[in-house]
Amino acid sequence: MAQYKVGVIGATGAVGMEMVRVLHDRKFPVGELHLFASERSSGKKIATPFGEIEVELFSVEAAREMDFVFLAVSGDFATEFAPQIAAEGGAIVIDNSSAFRYDEKYPLVIPEINPQEAKKSRLIANPNCTTAILAVALYPLHKNFGVKRAIVSTYQATSGAGAEGMAELENETRKYLAGEPVKNEIFAHPIPFNLIPHIDKFQDNGYTKEEMKVTWETRKIFGEPEFKLSCTAVRIPTFRAHSESCTIETEKPITPEAAREILRKAPGVKVVDDTAKLEYPMPLNATKKYDVEVGRIRASLVFEHGLDFFVCGDQLLKGAALNAVQIAELLV
Amino acid sequence: MAQYKVGVIGATGAVGMEMVRVLHDRKFPVGELHLFASERSSGKKIATPFGEIEVELFSVEAAREMDFVFLAVSGDFATEFAPQIAAEGGAIVIDNSSAFRYDEKYPLVIPEINPQEAKKSRLIANPNCTTAILAVALYPLHKNFGVKRAIVSTYQATSGAGAEGMAELENETRKYLAGEPVKNEIFAHPIPFNLIPHIDKFQDNGYTKEEMKVTWETRKIFGEPEFKLSCTAVRIPTFRAHSESCTIETEKPITPEAAREILRKAPGVKVVDDTAKLEYPMPLNATKKYDVEVGRIRASLVFEHGLDFFVCGDQLLKGAALNAVQIAELLV
Repeated sequence: MAQYKVGVIGATGAVGMEMVRVLHDRKFPVGELHLFASERSSGKKIATPFGEIEVELFSVEAAREMDFVFLAVSGDFATEFAPQIAAEGGAIVIDNSSAFRYDEKYPLVIPEINPQEAKKSRLIANPNCTTAILAVALYPLHKNFGVKRAIVSTYQATSGAGAEGMAELENETRKYLAGEPVKNEIFAHPIPFNLIPHIDKFQDNGYTKEEMKVTWETRKIFGEPEFKLSCTAVRIPTFRAHSESCTIETEKPITPEAAREILRKAPGVKVVDDTAKLEYPMPLNATKKYDVEVGRIRASLVFEHGLDFFVCGDQLLKGAALNAVQIAELLV
Repeated sequence: MAQYKVGVIGATGAVGMEMVRVLHDRKFPVGELHLFASERSSGKKIATPFGEIEVELFSVEAAREMDFVFLAVSGDFATEFAPQIAAEGGAIVIDNSSAFRYDEKYPLVIPEINPQEAKKSRLIANPNCTTAILAVALYPLHKNFGVKRAIVSTYQATSGAGAEGMAELENETRKYLAGEPVKNEIFAHPIPFNLIPHIDKFQDNGYTKEEMKVTWETRKIFGEPEFKLSCTAVRIPTFRAHSESCTIETEKPITPEAAREILRKAPGVKVVDDTAKLEYPMPLNATKKYDVEVGRIRASLVFEHGLDFFVCGDQLLKGAALNAVQIAELLV
């Protein structure tokens, strides 16, 4: 079996570290693993499931030597370097930033939904965490019942702001409980025992970019430029699993039973919906799991044909690292 | 000015204590204040803004001596005793439980919306916290634009489960951060850094009773038995302000500007919606405030005429004690 040279850029961040774990866990055919970072981190030795690896200073030339490069860095970095790394003769690049997601030239892929797109380019965009977690559950329902509109409210973990976001939640919560003043650097406001209905920049239409990402990306991944989806994105004081409350109106009649049957067969989805046993999706259980949990499935009270449901998925896994590695798996 | 004999039953709980504070803060014409409780608490001396008061053992006879009785106790207690206290010659009773809310014989009142109902009975029901916080913002929009349907997802604080709920959040969070095992007694699952999409009992239709309360109570308070509202109620690790994400479809065209203008004039509502200044409703700011904050107002992406918005209000104030005292104010 072929072995590949694999590079991870931004390997010291929360998503980058998770990518290395997922590559190992899923037995991706890694021949050589190279971790790239900026000068600040290069030379550091990092413990990985592949053994201790020394972080290398990033250069386009070194990255182009790889077969696959995973980018877990800022959009600015990706905009500058990803096309150079992917250019003919270089590596296949899977980019976790939003830099290329809305550019028609580049595919935006969730392997359970539009795997056929992955082979169309050497540079492939990995979707936003909130989109990926919702879409694996929404798409099978859309395919079977025709979703006319979707209304989404999110409960997003601090991991969406990286390791620093999680650290701010933990450290500031300690201070809060000690009666000390609470600060905020990563988030716009203090996060302990609070929520913040604001993620990413505000757009002219009053939505945040995070909210519009869910609309834009769902449209592109589903291949339906007019798909109707409205999102409210809210940061809550949890660590690394995102939850989402979703109401859909469908073209065809839909029942909770029929929806559950479809979702039980859907890849990447686990139906957790036994209210008698108090089983429903929660960050406590969805954390560090590959599958997105779906539950609280019930007939909507406001649409003739409609459904309310609740999803919960690990932001660093299906929301980032897992989906990226799954894209690479389509191409080996 | 007339002075009244006022009794609070369940005065040692989170809502009961808040009722006493609100009575004082709003200068309700209290001539005598009597705090009633069970044997366990009777005889205790409690510091209140009215001075130290000794808790009296509850009896129907003693309660009937009052002009107004606020009930901040369980539905079972209310079912048994509230009608006896309110019977001709007794006190006017304002009950915070759900015991009488869905009974046509008893009014369910939010003073900003249906004050005229308060005088129709000597026993008046105070609405569910989530309903009250949403309805003060939803009703003015409904009156002006005609709400065809409303889709609500909540972010509910632990105060909804009383002082014990808040204590469980604080104590178990300390344990979590100390690396100790985390337990749950008040909530169905551990609450630190988690969320629980389950509040009150599950109903046959898959909704929880908490979710159905919002639908049933909004219908009764608005006087529209067919009003279309679907709710997902979620407990999150915050202390005492509830937030709600709401999407509405309206009969008439609606713009964010027109909605803001209406809401700025609406009693009980404060428009907090300046995204350039990072101002939006949050528990951090809405806690201990009388007004419900409304913000993140924007045109819905899924309805021809529709709006998305976010509300945040203090669960113990507009969600309970404040609304109860406001009802009494209608009757002095």
